[in-house]
Parts: sequence; structure tokens; C-alpha cells
Amino acid sequence: MPARGKSWMGEESARLPQGFRAAGVAAGIKRTGGRDMALIVTAPPATAAGVFTTNQVRAAPVKLDIEHLRGGVASAIVVNSGCANACTGLRGLRDARRTAECAGRLLGVAPRRVLVCSTGTIGVPLPMDRVEAGLLALVAALSPDGGPAVSEAILTTDTRPKRWSVAFRVRDRLVRLTGFCKGAGMIEPNMATMLAFFLTDADVPRPALQRLLKAAADRSFNRITVDGDRSTNDTALVLANGASGVMLAPGRPGWAAFEAAFFETACELARMIVRDGEGATKLITIRVRGARSDREADLAARSVANSLLVKTAWAGPNANWGRVVDALGYSSARVVEERVSIWFDDLRAVVRGAPGPATREALQRVVGRPEFTVDIDLGLGRGRAEVLTCNCTEEYVRINM
Amino acid sequence: MPARGKSWMGEESARLPQGFRAAGVAAGIKRTGGRDMALIVTAPPATAAGVFTTNQVRAAPVKLDIEHLRGGVASAIVVNSGCANACTGLRGLRDARRTAECAGRLLGVAPRRVLVCSTGTIGVPLPMDRVEAGLLALVAALSPDGGPAVSEAILTTDTRPKRWSVAFRVRDRLVRLTGFCKGAGMIEPNMATMLAFFLTDADVPRPALQRLLKAAADRSFNRITVDGDRSTNDTALVLANGASGVMLAPGRPGWAAFEAAFFETACELARMIVRDGEGATKLITIRVRGARSDREADLAARSVANSLLVKTAWAGPNANWGRVVDALGYSSARVVEERVSIWFDDLRAVVRGAPGPATREALQRVVGRPEFTVDIDLGLGRGRAEVLTCNCTEEYVRINM
Repeated sequence: MPARGKSWMGEESARLPQGFRAAGVAAGIKRTGGRDMALIVTAPPATAAGVFTTNQVRAAPVKLDIEHLRGGVASAIVVNSGCANACTGLRGLRDARRTAECAGRLLGVAPRRVLVCSTGTIGVPLPMDRVEAGLLALVAALSPDGGPAVSEAILTTDTRPKRWSVAFRVRDRLVRLTGFCKGAGMIEPNMATMLAFFLTDADVPRPALQRLLKAAADRSFNRITVDGDRSTNDTALVLANGASGVMLAPGRPGWAAFEAAFFETACELARMIVRDGEGATKLITIRVRGARSDREADLAARSVANSLLVKTAWAGPNANWGRVVDALGYSSARVVEERVSIWFDDLRAVVRGAPGPATREALQRVVGRPEFTVDIDLGLGRGRAEVLTCNCTEEYVRINM
Repeated sequence: MPARGKSWMGEESARLPQGFRAAGVAAGIKRTGGRDMALIVTAPPATAAGVFTTNQVRAAPVKLDIEHLRGGVASAIVVNSGCANACTGLRGLRDARRTAECAGRLLGVAPRRVLVCSTGTIGVPLPMDRVEAGLLALVAALSPDGGPAVSEAILTTDTRPKRWSVAFRVRDRLVRLTGFCKGAGMIEPNMATMLAFFLTDADVPRPALQRLLKAAADRSFNRITVDGDRSTNDTALVLANGASGVMLAPGRPGWAAFEAAFFETACELARMIVRDGEGATKLITIRVRGARSDREADLAARSVANSLLVKTAWAGPNANWGRVVDALGYSSARVVEERVSIWFDDLRAVVRGAPGPATREALQRVVGRPEFTVDIDLGLGRGRAEVLTCNCTEEYVRINM
């Protein structure tokens, strides 16, 4: 088994897996200017799978993609930032459909093979004239080196592009996998205002691809939180075009490496999202054990990870473990104060409900780090869970005002 | 039926109901200085009732008060701000007990007739030497005009004292009711880091008093949110000492006026808490109707009222009704996008899932007001609920860092 999990660096990482071309342009949709439309195209057509927001209010492109994915094959993905095309009624659905039709016409593929994603302000209609002009420019700019332009064009309040690429060999043939995503705000369980795209030149049967994407999302994007708000547009898509000539499926050679590569890519992208959370300056892992069940561990971890008082304290930086205990106490998980122990990295802040040996100053030094882990033992059972979160700074408020 | 709901103004409002004396002093517990201990004393002893935080982690004084209230009679309340005496283990409980004992000794009453409340930082032990010195100073300063000093001494990050007084006549006898409270942060359903004290010179049987306090809390303190965090110390207490010579009970003359006065006092105090939420500059009423049940209406209203993205948008001021729809969509209430209508005061922002006639600018003017109401019709049933919330500003983050 080869170079599994090895990420490409520098020039190499700009290259898309075989058979993919992409572009990103400025179409004038984002008020702040800059690239705001992206196009990813694959020839041959790819096996496609997707997972979407659990919000009951779904943006028009989400509804369209669910419909288009029934076919299981896709040739292109069109993305715009700056406008979410959510809460836009029938007009929104018509606009999403027209975007797919226009891209299909320009690329010579059936519109149902075009997937559409939008992210940005809710409740504003897509400026279709700009979208159509943007599509023309995108088709003209398509290139195997278009990855960086895509990762830039899909951003909203993100401060940096998020991309991760891995490659590995199966019987001397190279398989590539590249992931792009955008995140920033409205990041909570079951995805977020986030878009993620996975492109691979492996050939993977549809059911296995769908299961893999779901499993990867559960381990990565569904375990992060920035502000507890879940969006209307969350979408993760995977396209597997088989251009490498390598057929991968569960139980066959190379599948374990592919699965590991996919999980690595999803987890790295998820970490980038939290690290680049709106106004965030710290990446914090909340690890709960000793809950009555995994589900209760998850509830406890999320209660802490989403507590505004905890997140602002850590911006201080101030460990303020009292707020952690408080958030555990109001979670839906069973918590018995006298059983709770808490560590900040290796320092014992709370031992069975009472202040531990770590001094305030020592704890403050841990919380001052750009990354730290809060380990919580509820002392009641064997349930475990882990959630990634960030601190909450004044900058978060400024961004969202 | 007389002057029901009429609040006293100016000099008058400083006066406590008959038989009560109070004081507030600086005992050196609060790091920021100023008054941080209060004492309320009643002779004759009062019928007493209380409601407490639903957090599974309860501060030591909460545990003590639940024990002391079993007797149903109280002579005094001791309050300190600056230290919550929460997550302080056995030592915390010992300290709370010692506070009651010390106050009882100084006042010549049984310690079990003394109630103790703390608010402030979690996880730090009470400085008992200062508490005991403070008690000495408090007893020396007791006065029927001590109300303002109490309302000041119980504050933490509040910017102003919160007090409301009403009086009414029953058969030519005057009955008085005064409420004090503190709020600021960690304000969520089922109380908050809030303390509230109701004092009346009416004579009210214990069961009626307990039911009235619970009903009033459900209509007031349990319908407000500042940041979605629930505290370990929330306490509302009522003392009814009968010094007015007026006996009040359900079904008897004057009860309706008393009930109305109690609800008014609780609701006014709750509004003051939200209006003075940490960093808050606006008071917003979220009113949901058309939910499948009252419970779902409540879930939907709280989802909006607690959405950090909604609250920061309103700090803008920016109506951003898309974020409201988004928060409804991820609430646990059933929401069908095409049925949702939203008003900001009298402006129609969303009509059955699509943008309404109100312009962005007009909506912005509403959200610019210091108070406004967001009416949400889910169009699915007859469930209703109302929650008060505030905007979230950079100041909130600064305060809690």
C-alpha cells in the first residue's frame, strides 16, 4: 500500500485529477468584488453523489441537485458565491434550473447532468444576466489547473481558500482525489453554510460512493461548529470519473487507501473551516467520554462547543472552566456534578466536580494556544464524542452585523 | 378595585413593603469594587417560596435554599455578587451554610430561616472572611429605605439596577409588592444567571404563593433570552410577611389585583433584564403563531431568539429575514417554507416563503428602533408563543472575554 494520505504540495496541488477541468471568474455577483463563479467539468461524465443540509428550509439549488442526482451521473458543477438563492420561491427554482440549462448548452451536456450550488445572502434572487455572462467566461477559462481559481471563487466570508489533495497508487496506476470547500459562518452539525466538492479520477460504483461521502461527512463536516447556525445551502458533492482507469469498490484492492484518503481530505477540510471560522483565532477540540451513551456524549460536547459564554471566554484567553461545567449542566445529556472531570490539554482543571490542581494562570496559557483540547469525563458510562469548535471574538460580530 | 398595576415613582419607590428592612454594602468580593453584598430582613417572619435553575449543575446556595424552603418560612435573604459559589464542591456548601448561620446569629433567627444567593464567577470559593465582615456591616445598615442599595449590590455585569414596585388597596388597606432582580448574561429559558426577589406585606398561604411565583416566572423570566446560556445559580424568591394585615388567597377579595400586580412586576423586571442584556441595545419580541402546537411555536421562537447570526444582523441594524427563515428551518418545530410569513412590526418581509413588499431600507428602519416585534406565522396550526430577546453586539464579546 502506497503513499496513502500524502498530501501534495506547491505546484502539484493545483493540478486536478485526470479528466477534470475547472475555472473561477468574477461575474459581479458578490458585492465585495472578486471571483464569485466557478465551474468544474469532467469528461468522461462522472458517477456522482451528494449530501445536503438537514435544514427544513432548503435553497433552490439544493432542491435541484437532489433531483439531478437521481440520475447518478454528472458532467459539471456550477457554483456561485454572494447569493444563496434561498427563500426565493418558485423564481429561485427557475433560476437554478436556468443556470443548469445554460451551462449544459454551453458544454454540450444534458442540463440534468449539471449540478448547481449557491452560497451567500438569503432571500435575494440570483442576478441571472450576470450568471449567464459568467458562465460564458467560465467555459472559456476551463483548464486542468483551474483548482485554485475554484477554491477562491466559492468563498464568502472565508479569509482563505480551503483545498486538500491526496494521491496514491493502485497496481502502478495513480489515483488522485482533490477536495475544495468553503465555510466561515453558519457552521453547525449536519453541515453548515458550507460547500464541499470532492473530485477523483477513480471509478467507483454509485452506492459505495454515496455511502463513503456520508460516512466522511459524519466524521468531518458534521463534527464542527462555528456558531450553531445551520444553513439552507449546505452541500457536499463527489464526482468520480474513472479517468485513472482504476476501478475501486469495497473489498477490492486500493479501497482501504481510497477510503482513508477520502476521510483525511474531509477531516482536513473540516479543520480548515473551523480554523477559518468567522473571527476565529483558535481551533478547539471538545472530547467527551464517560457519557451514558455516544449520543449523550455528542449532546454534551455540542452544548460546550456552542456555548457563546465558553467561546467568548476562550477569546480572552480565559479557561473559565466554570462556564464549561455550566454548559454541560444545561445540555440534554445526564450530568452529575460530582462525577465531572475536565482537562485543558494535559492540565486538570476539574476533578470530580471540584477545582483541580491546575492554576488559573497555567490554564490561561493553554487557552492562549492556537489549538488546544478540552477533555471532559462525565464519569457515568462509556459514551464518547468529539466536536471541533472555535473561539468567538468581536470580529465575529463585526462580520455578521 | 384600586390602582392595580400602578407603579410608584421617585422617592416612594425606595420604600420597602411594611415589615421589611434591607441594606447593601461593599464587602470586597467583586473585583471591580462597589456594593457586592445585600441583606433583606423581615419581621414578622414571612411565608416563603422559590423557583430555581433547571441546570443539572446547581450552585451551593441553590441547594441550601431548596433545603431551607422546606420549612416554608424565612426571615432573611443574604445575597453576594462577584462569586457564584458554584462548582465549589463540599466546601461551597459549607460556605453557604456558614453564611446562613452567621446571618442567623447576628439577626437572632434560626439559620434555616435564612436564604442565601450568590452570583458571579463560577468555580471560585467564597472569601468567607469578607462575607462575615460584610454581614456585620449589613446588619448595622438595615433600613426600610434600603431597597436601592440592595438592587445595586446584587448586580454583576448589569449596567443599571432593576426594581419595580406596585401598590393597591384591599378594603382600605394598602398592600405593597416590590421586586428586585439582576440579569445581564447567561440568560435563557428557565431563568438565567438571574436573581429575583419579590417582597410583599400581604399574607399569602404557602401553596398559593409558590404557584403564583412559578406562574409569574413562566410568563416572564422563562420567556427571555440573552445568549442561550443557562446558569447554575438562577433563583427567584418571594417573601410574604403579612405586615399589611391583608390576607390574600385565590378566590378571596384582592387576589386578582395581587396576581395582576405580581405578573406585572415579574414581566417588567424580565423586560429590564433583556433591555440590559450584556452589550444589548435593542429589545426584540419574537411572536410565533400558526405552529402545530404551542410547544412547537416555543421551539421556533427560541430558535430565532437564540440565533447568533440573527442577533448580530439586528445589531447592524439589518433585518436579514433570510437568517430568520434559516433559524426557523433548523428549529425542532415543523416548518414548511411556502407557508412561512414574517412581519417586522407592521412591515411584511416574507409572504408565504417569498420576499414580501417591504423594502430592505424600510425593514432596516424598523430594526434600527430600540424596540421592535418580529411576527412569524408558520401557517400550519394554532400554536402560539412569545419570547423576548436582544441584539448581539461586539460589546457582548468584550464583556465576556
